[in-house]
Amino acid sequence: MLVFPAEGNAVCIVPETQVEEVSAEIWDAQILAYAHGRHDSPDQEREIERCLIDLANKNSWRTIGYEGTFEGIAAPGNVAEPRVPSKKFERLLKSATGKATFIDAQELLDSLRKTKTAWEIEKIRLANEIANIGFEVFFNMADVGRSAIELAAAVEQAIMVKGTGYKKARRVRAFAQVAVGEKETSVGWRPFEVTTDRKLLKGELVILELAVVADGYWADRTRVRAAGSASPELQRLNDIVKQAQDAAISAICPGALASKIDEQARGIISKNGLENEFVHITGHGVGFRYHEGYPILAPGSSQVLLPNAIVTVEPGVYSPDFGGIRIEDDIVVTSQGPEILALFSRELS
Amino acid sequence: MLVFPAEGNAVCIVPETQVEEVSAEIWDAQILAYAHGRHDSPDQEREIERCLIDLANKNSWRTIGYEGTFEGIAAPGNVAEPRVPSKKFERLLKSATGKATFIDAQELLDSLRKTKTAWEIEKIRLANEIANIGFEVFFNMADVGRSAIELAAAVEQAIMVKGTGYKKARRVRAFAQVAVGEKETSVGWRPFEVTTDRKLLKGELVILELAVVADGYWADRTRVRAAGSASPELQRLNDIVKQAQDAAISAICPGALASKIDEQARGIISKNGLENEFVHITGHGVGFRYHEGYPILAPGSSQVLLPNAIVTVEPGVYSPDFGGIRIEDDIVVTSQGPEILALFSRELS
Repeated sequence: MLVFPAEGNAVCIVPETQVEEVSAEIWDAQILAYAHGRHDSPDQEREIERCLIDLANKNSWRTIGYEGTFEGIAAPGNVAEPRVPSKKFERLLKSATGKATFIDAQELLDSLRKTKTAWEIEKIRLANEIANIGFEVFFNMADVGRSAIELAAAVEQAIMVKGTGYKKARRVRAFAQVAVGEKETSVGWRPFEVTTDRKLLKGELVILELAVVADGYWADRTRVRAAGSASPELQRLNDIVKQAQDAAISAICPGALASKIDEQARGIISKNGLENEFVHITGHGVGFRYHEGYPILAPGSSQVLLPNAIVTVEPGVYSPDFGGIRIEDDIVVTSQGPEILALFSRELS
Repeated sequence: MLVFPAEGNAVCIVPETQVEEVSAEIWDAQILAYAHGRHDSPDQEREIERCLIDLANKNSWRTIGYEGTFEGIAAPGNVAEPRVPSKKFERLLKSATGKATFIDAQELLDSLRKTKTAWEIEKIRLANEIANIGFEVFFNMADVGRSAIELAAAVEQAIMVKGTGYKKARRVRAFAQVAVGEKETSVGWRPFEVTTDRKLLKGELVILELAVVADGYWADRTRVRAAGSASPELQRLNDIVKQAQDAAISAICPGALASKIDEQARGIISKNGLENEFVHITGHGVGFRYHEGYPILAPGSSQVLLPNAIVTVEPGVYSPDFGGIRIEDDIVVTSQGPEILALFSRELS
């Protein structure tokens, strides 16, 4: 738990086993540690309560803002075990801090998340560079006879092994979603599809949707390959998606309307008669999470791009006739224009 | 969202993209679908609200129980993006269902989670068998020169590739935490340690803590190896941990006191002068989640073992002098005694 008083240093409340690590990673915060994880450790909630009461007694908190209305949360260090502050935590917070007034600070936090500092941009760039390690493996391996799950697992493995230690990154993990063949790739825009053990056949498409987290910062990228060589028709479709991505990226600058960026990509795709095949939005925020609610590049979005926002640009076309093609990169909005955080080939074969 | 009325069929509210999959997986539930994931899909919350209002109008719900006090949640299909019902969801639920009274049903749900049905036990057995695929790779690879992260990534990769399709399992994923050498393994009981790129040296210990999820059901297992051959002293320590595990497992039966099971393991370890080195509890519930709050095999635990509960048994010893050794398996409490869900060698080398 991190407590930011209006004046003075932040205070970080952590299990004692994590003091060394947190001290090395955190700026200027006072650390309050509590016993944890041993068979004779006192109850964790009581310990946190004790730290909070201690803090509250030394300060005279009148108003406390907290993150109350999360729905999507950042994946934790131990991804098998997401933990969320719930009502139990809310009650603990209130009982420990006495007569203070509580305010749901979600809107304030969301507004802070809209733009990234220079330091944060470098962290998100790092996640994007590490994603390229996965693309390298994907481009080398995506061929006839490979299964979707083999490709996903190999990409994740390479990122864990080569990403750990890359420019000092410590906590590196990837989540790959792979679709192969016409049927799977034609619904490759759906968020909850499962990677199967279906094998790639000659000429078929394969989509890699790749989430990478490095020391808490995220990249969200996509590439598509054809097994063996791509047919002229698939190459034509891929060229359209590339043009759509280029057009949207070129239009990115501070002050631009999010809907206009979407229009750039959608315009190219529609001009080629594929307006019904571009089923999803053009992009979303990324960096602190895999998907963020600002900016949303979509038809009708009234959002305006702020300098130092980071957004995906990911046009795609999907049809039972040919399958699906999507290309996705992460872009920083700068006063000099769009900056793509990491480049990688967008060719099908 | 799954709605269980007191009478009649359950209703499952899902994005329309998931109807086919959910219909194939779910028993007897009516499916209500809403548009989702397209650029022109209506707002998801409004859609869920619409489904709920529709349901509420057809029924006269007076009391609605819901899961309100979660803290640890099950990892979702897309592990990069945990989603949790929060205050926003609570408000939506209340506004959609009118004058009904809401009750936090957490205690009821927790009590249902204490024991597993025969079908659930088979699912958790499957996760344990798939964990053995990871142990196989770990035993083959854990040798001089291998880094912790290489081992973790290889275990996860093998489980994804060979676990997908194993006895029809579809959504298979592993989370491996690996500690190598004296320093890392001596704190190998800590829950939040990071897997590093440190390489194994001759004779050193390596711990694999392994979480496996297969179609929503979890296994939690641990094995330790020595790089090359284990010294007689390490073998002696490993034998003590094995004996402690055997003693605790043998004592498992319906009606047994959880503290007595812990005492069995702790007794063996203490008898060998290592009472201060067995720093953590003997076991915890497992199956619906990676860690569950029932049963807790710990000193002073007043819980009583119920038939068809599943519990880990994972004694361990840790010291800066030799490192750490822990062996962990998942056990079903049956009227015929303890049943280990999957066996695997417990040897160091």
